[in-house]
Amino acid sequence: MKSERLIYLPLGGAGEIGMNAYVYGWGAPGKERLILIDMGVTFPDMDGAPGVDVIMPDMTWLEQRADRLEAIFITHAHEDHIGALGHLWPKLKAKVYARKFTGTIGRLKLDEMGLPLDAITIVEPRPAVVEAGPFQVQFVPLSHSVPESAALIIDSPGGRIVHSGDFKLDRSPVVGEPWDDAAWEAIAAEKPVKALMCDSTNVFSLHPGRSEATLAEPLAELIRNSHGMFVATTFGSNVARLKTLAEAAVAADRTICVMGRSMKRMLQAARETGVMSSFPRVVSPDEALEIPRRNLMLLVTGSQGERRAAAAALSRGKYLGHEMKTGDTFLFSSRTIPGNEKEVGRIWNALSEKGVRVVDDAGGLYHVSGHANRPDLEHVHRLLVPDMLIPMHGEHRHLSEHARIATEGGLTSLVTVNGMMLDLTGEVPKVAEYIETGRIYLDGTILIGALDGVIRNRIRMALNGHVLATVILDENDEPMGEPWVEIMGLTDRGKNGSLLAETMETELGEWMERAGRKVLKNDDKVEEELRRLIRQIAVEEIGKKPEVTVVISRLMLE
Amino acid sequence: MKSERLIYLPLGGAGEIGMNAYVYGWGAPGKERLILIDMGVTFPDMDGAPGVDVIMPDMTWLEQRADRLEAIFITHAHEDHIGALGHLWPKLKAKVYARKFTGTIGRLKLDEMGLPLDAITIVEPRPAVVEAGPFQVQFVPLSHSVPESAALIIDSPGGRIVHSGDFKLDRSPVVGEPWDDAAWEAIAAEKPVKALMCDSTNVFSLHPGRSEATLAEPLAELIRNSHGMFVATTFGSNVARLKTLAEAAVAADRTICVMGRSMKRMLQAARETGVMSSFPRVVSPDEALEIPRRNLMLLVTGSQGERRAAAAALSRGKYLGHEMKTGDTFLFSSRTIPGNEKEVGRIWNALSEKGVRVVDDAGGLYHVSGHANRPDLEHVHRLLVPDMLIPMHGEHRHLSEHARIATEGGLTSLVTVNGMMLDLTGEVPKVAEYIETGRIYLDGTILIGALDGVIRNRIRMALNGHVLATVILDENDEPMGEPWVEIMGLTDRGKNGSLLAETMETELGEWMERAGRKVLKNDDKVEEELRRLIRQIAVEEIGKKPEVTVVISRLMLE
Repeated sequence: MKSERLIYLPLGGAGEIGMNAYVYGWGAPGKERLILIDMGVTFPDMDGAPGVDVIMPDMTWLEQRADRLEAIFITHAHEDHIGALGHLWPKLKAKVYARKFTGTIGRLKLDEMGLPLDAITIVEPRPAVVEAGPFQVQFVPLSHSVPESAALIIDSPGGRIVHSGDFKLDRSPVVGEPWDDAAWEAIAAEKPVKALMCDSTNVFSLHPGRSEATLAEPLAELIRNSHGMFVATTFGSNVARLKTLAEAAVAADRTICVMGRSMKRMLQAARETGVMSSFPRVVSPDEALEIPRRNLMLLVTGSQGERRAAAAALSRGKYLGHEMKTGDTFLFSSRTIPGNEKEVGRIWNALSEKGVRVVDDAGGLYHVSGHANRPDLEHVHRLLVPDMLIPMHGEHRHLSEHARIATEGGLTSLVTVNGMMLDLTGEVPKVAEYIETGRIYLDGTILIGALDGVIRNRIRMALNGHVLATVILDENDEPMGEPWVEIMGLTDRGKNGSLLAETMETELGEWMERAGRKVLKNDDKVEEELRRLIRQIAVEEIGKKPEVTVVISRLMLE
Repeated sequence: MKSERLIYLPLGGAGEIGMNAYVYGWGAPGKERLILIDMGVTFPDMDGAPGVDVIMPDMTWLEQRADRLEAIFITHAHEDHIGALGHLWPKLKAKVYARKFTGTIGRLKLDEMGLPLDAITIVEPRPAVVEAGPFQVQFVPLSHSVPESAALIIDSPGGRIVHSGDFKLDRSPVVGEPWDDAAWEAIAAEKPVKALMCDSTNVFSLHPGRSEATLAEPLAELIRNSHGMFVATTFGSNVARLKTLAEAAVAADRTICVMGRSMKRMLQAARETGVMSSFPRVVSPDEALEIPRRNLMLLVTGSQGERRAAAAALSRGKYLGHEMKTGDTFLFSSRTIPGNEKEVGRIWNALSEKGVRVVDDAGGLYHVSGHANRPDLEHVHRLLVPDMLIPMHGEHRHLSEHARIATEGGLTSLVTVNGMMLDLTGEVPKVAEYIETGRIYLDGTILIGALDGVIRNRIRMALNGHVLATVILDENDEPMGEPWVEIMGLTDRGKNGSLLAETMETELGEWMERAGRKVLKNDDKVEEELRRLIRQIAVEEIGKKPEVTVVISRLMLE
């Protein structure tokens, strides 16, 4: 036994908020039997990955060891935990375990990609146990901003690990099970917790988190006191919030209409799986047109300003026959994720132009976070008293702050980022190895490596513009006709008002005339020289250094 | 006199936070004599204007009426008020008036562009009066986050206007004159205020603003209790903050070193113009290397995460011989402007990886805003009791909220956005006309219109990639050789592993073979068909619809 070890390896999610993927293993070094927790995505932006659809962890390391992978566990149905399932499962092909709601969402993803739905096995929460090689895994229900989030108890010959997943301490969560101190004390009493891998998202929020139930009254009052149409947005997966909003609407004599595919899908899954016992009657957008504005509430997707979602559509004008106007109210029952401020502001401003009253959560009345705040994290540390606390689900600053408060609380802690494999076997965590990790992009229908240079070229064209030059040479390396220049993404006239392409064509042509045959027979040389000339002219004429593509055609005329 | 009118026309800054430019006029309709307040820029981002240097208001309307422009007034030295001076002054060529500090910064800008420094006339504050055609203009000192910000009193035959500029109510501002209720009461008593054009930036901040002086003690305590090197960042133009930070450092036995051109420039201007009476001794980065870390404080630029500024450089590694490490402290004595969260987070995370303790203003201890909060705005409304309150310096949501609170306070108000010309002559503001306005981009050394399509093409290339195809035809419209395809910003292999460019070349070649002479002699037709084919193949092979450039060369071989 001595030579066996318990390892932990984050492939995504440790050093970022997004694309969670954590590996655990038990066995002789290099022969550990493995399990994977979560397969998440993260979302691209124009700065880093323009045009990319989603970003996923590079799982090459795990793919190469797929024969040692016993199982995959999905903690909950948020995209940053389940979004890569349809894309990456074919590379791993291990059995996937999830609770019912999560599994239902997961199967929709498999179905979209034409994958077998029985790849996912639905499991009951603790005390049910999934055997996965040397591991026994239990799902422990926890509150989060999606139904049926779960922590995992991972028992192995190396000891008990608690993998928190995403969670908050909510003793009245509207949907799902309340937080239960006693249950967690029992977990720690049953078997000492060797390691707690713990959500770090809200470590900088210094006050204790509030319960979902505290929103009911403020929301009811806001809706009751609004006169025209009432439109509310939140994450589609926040079923508890949708229920709170819908019930407040009914109390204010309003009928509910849901707009947005992801929200409808989540509500349907919540109904089918029985996680939500009741939900007010919902009408279609068409039926809603017959209802007086002041008796209507629209629940819409797009709380983060997504351009194609219902909220953005309504801010631009008519959507499914409905249009907002003076006297209506729009509520962001949500927090703006850092980086989305401009998109959210765009919707707010557009609605403001229509005379719509916009209410956000600035006062903290209409939204609560789904993650445990600092005092809540400290409470969990004290309940479980793990031998080691490993922060996860956070940028480096969150992880290091979490480690700091854990250490101050008397726990052993280590900041662990993607690719750092820890050996947890001993009394303190040790770095066993550094694994090459990274990101892969879904770009259209193709997966590409983040470092392949494809996206770098797109960014460069966006910053610098693109010039292409074609020249034709005959079998004697003599230029045929004049060089031709096309410009994309640059002004067409230079500083003196002359056409930039013409200036370039003239100067390239002159260079071709001057260049000797020895130079012209060498494609590399011609390309290099034409690129240099084009850049030089662009800098002189417009102050930019464009990307350049040179096409040299050589015609054999026999 | 009856046929003369007093007009107000925002060209920038009304409906956005940035690129301020406001026109006032007095005279017969279409013959008003004009003045311009401020010439600001706004900063581009990858989403909206990749590769662009700065964004400025389109002043075409004013350029066409430059003969009627009496003068330009600059309220203060922030880029969103003065940044376009060097770029757009040559199109207007009117006399520019500013207070000493602002004028000094303005002259640096003129100098950089080789423009005459005497375009700027330095003026003393009220009671000094600048005569500009029908207008008498006075500068009234106000506190803001840069020295010598000023409101303007604009008297005309049409009445008195107060143009607030950017301001806060600070009764102990560290640098500059304290807010003075009595002085403002006197201004309103002297002559009734017809219209107050008023800063709306902080209308959503519900508590009264705090004074710059309240920061001295918390900052001193923080610096005193820090052990290693202390690095602080704030806006370079926030001279009062720099002074507070520097004095706290000296009290903690630290020597100050300033890094970053803009910060040095502002401090120098503050010294030269006498706006800052004293500032502790500053050493060079080289000299600072000789000082023990715990006796050193670096003041650095880059509080918004700018990649080329000192803060970002220090987060990446060694900068001017200095490197941060475990035990050091980094302070953001600033607020992150919405949209810059990711860049600021990047610096924070990089410093966190080095073991540096990062302190931001989450607790509100280490930064105060330079703009008046809602209660402060309401106080000013009550002091001046203008006939009309026109909100400016805000996005639409800020303007409409500001108008709402003004109306609730009993004032007449109207939301006015860029291009809306108001007639202020009567008792209530009336929309006189809509002027075409917009944005122009400085892209390299060329000014381009935001709607010229140049930047749209850059964005499209960033999202979709760029494919170029060249085909050569002879004088009989016969293809010569095979089509050639180059791909930029797309993966080079399609779904079946074949080279995308080759697949395209083959299919384009086959099409050329099949196409009859009638088609091939028509460049437009060939281009259209090749573009369609390329897109179709790209969608099939990689799921993307690229930008396409087709070059058709026709060779005359006689």
